[in-house]
Amino acid sequence: MPSFTVYKGSKDGSIHKSQTTKGELKGDQVLVRITASGLCGTDEHYRTTDMALGHEGAGVVEELGPDVQYLKKGSRVGWGYHTNACGHCEMCITGRETFCPEREMYGLANFDQGSFATQAVWREAFLHQIPENISDKDAAPLMCGGATVYNALRMYNIQPTDRVGVIGVGGLGHLAIQFASKMGCDVVVLSGTESKKEEAMKLGANEFIAMKGKKAGDLDLGERKINALLVTTSAQPDWELILPAMAPDSTIFPLTVSTDDFRFPYMPMIMSGLRIQGNLVAARNHHRKMLQFASQHKIKPIIQEFPLNQDGITEAMQTLNDGKMRYRGVLVPQQ
Amino acid sequence: MPSFTVYKGSKDGSIHKSQTTKGELKGDQVLVRITASGLCGTDEHYRTTDMALGHEGAGVVEELGPDVQYLKKGSRVGWGYHTNACGHCEMCITGRETFCPEREMYGLANFDQGSFATQAVWREAFLHQIPENISDKDAAPLMCGGATVYNALRMYNIQPTDRVGVIGVGGLGHLAIQFASKMGCDVVVLSGTESKKEEAMKLGANEFIAMKGKKAGDLDLGERKINALLVTTSAQPDWELILPAMAPDSTIFPLTVSTDDFRFPYMPMIMSGLRIQGNLVAARNHHRKMLQFASQHKIKPIIQEFPLNQDGITEAMQTLNDGKMRYRGVLVPQQ
Repeated sequence: MPSFTVYKGSKDGSIHKSQTTKGELKGDQVLVRITASGLCGTDEHYRTTDMALGHEGAGVVEELGPDVQYLKKGSRVGWGYHTNACGHCEMCITGRETFCPEREMYGLANFDQGSFATQAVWREAFLHQIPENISDKDAAPLMCGGATVYNALRMYNIQPTDRVGVIGVGGLGHLAIQFASKMGCDVVVLSGTESKKEEAMKLGANEFIAMKGKKAGDLDLGERKINALLVTTSAQPDWELILPAMAPDSTIFPLTVSTDDFRFPYMPMIMSGLRIQGNLVAARNHHRKMLQFASQHKIKPIIQEFPLNQDGITEAMQTLNDGKMRYRGVLVPQQ
Repeated sequence: MPSFTVYKGSKDGSIHKSQTTKGELKGDQVLVRITASGLCGTDEHYRTTDMALGHEGAGVVEELGPDVQYLKKGSRVGWGYHTNACGHCEMCITGRETFCPEREMYGLANFDQGSFATQAVWREAFLHQIPENISDKDAAPLMCGGATVYNALRMYNIQPTDRVGVIGVGGLGHLAIQFASKMGCDVVVLSGTESKKEEAMKLGANEFIAMKGKKAGDLDLGERKINALLVTTSAQPDWELILPAMAPDSTIFPLTVSTDDFRFPYMPMIMSGLRIQGNLVAARNHHRKMLQFASQHKIKPIIQEFPLNQDGITEAMQTLNDGKMRYRGVLVPQQ
């Protein structure tokens, strides 16, 4: 009967330590000892909910359920937002199981466990082996942040010859620049100020535009307009500014979560045949290819480490809230 | 030197008769004698502008410019929103010339001529031959209304096995039902009341839902959720009502023009991977296939005729504004 420490949100937003006890491992369930957890903006959204937090997990397999097929004790694995699906619906049998009506996802199920914890129990089918040349700490942010930007770039017909725009250089943005650039795309970064320019160019951007002080009409990219725009900032951009930079028949991915309505100028959307594409984390096939691609191209998050305990989580969340994370917080258990 | 009558909008919204004189036909220009013109919601938008109205033209070729290649005097042709493009940009050479930066479109160029007129001069390259078994009156509404719904159904990966929703049974909606149904799709119509049910079912709908009095949560389509939704009503729908009817990874086409912002619930878009697809009229390849498809499957608009003169145009526009058009107004010159 696995029993382990988890860290939960609470009504006033403070982080609470709690104990979770699971039944005997059944079916293809696996007990994972957590060695690293990323911190994502979504954790902040659930901070005032009484549930175990964290959904960018990496760790080592400790125990195996009776039907486990390929994982072994000691296997290095990770998991993200999506941890179960029915396996037989149209979405599951077409490789789009993130949309299964019975999907288990962070914030929708499994409130008793997360990646801010010492251990967790998940189905082997939804765990992803970490490639040898990626450390646990570097793997964790790929499990949601990496999987999200990769999914946008791979699921919706973006081409290596496309110009990819990335708004915001943060947890998602700094990974999007790397993935898009390694896929051959011409990457242009739109950021508030010049402060992240050098880093963005090192990560693979071809052009960096500081948006501060820009007025509608200033953003004319001439012949090299944007074919796919990944919006990774927490606030929605000023579309009047952005629209002249978009190519016709192009795609906008609003990647960050928001409780506001999505608002967009109506006529430009129609006259330029623009697409607004809702994008979730990757289904397993793409998640695994994302890890493979990151391994092959040495794509790594730039991380800032915090201890995986009450104080560490609280400090990491504060750093994220203050907009000071460079670029993804990773919680690591103290020896 | 062709000289002909056109009908223009004006500041106070009244329709004015005017005379347009063109220079000698050059290049592949063709003089068309107009035998029928559809009336579209967009004409209403330009009613208070000093420009020749009408963009669903059908007629007969009367004169040929020196470089005309395949049209002959007497050829039956039509044209729509889009009447010229540069021919050499990326959009043009990929068959997406409706997005050419130098495109000529209704409301953007050619203010001196339209389809509310006795004649017009257009490039052969942007005229479309009308199939033999389609009359001029039936062809006219296909030139914009037909081309718009067809483009949505053909350009964005909609499958014959998909469930297609059509909101609104009007000029666009009654054509969308026919095209989608003949493409093999399972068509569900969402309309205000039951009043158009019989007609919608005759046009090819499999299911008809009257939305009046429906509350959020009432619209559960179970296993047969909508994969592609064509919104043809002039007002934007109540998305809270519609969302439970949408399949994950599905596409919403806001087809009608609006000067408001487009507003959409943010989180459902992300959690279900929904796409909002701006859709314009068809480029020429699809426009011509649309006519071929309509001919093969005997797809016809249901039309209401008005005289192509000041009074007739005024009356037709009033009928459209009153929501009483069944289903597309067609203006026909009086003998």
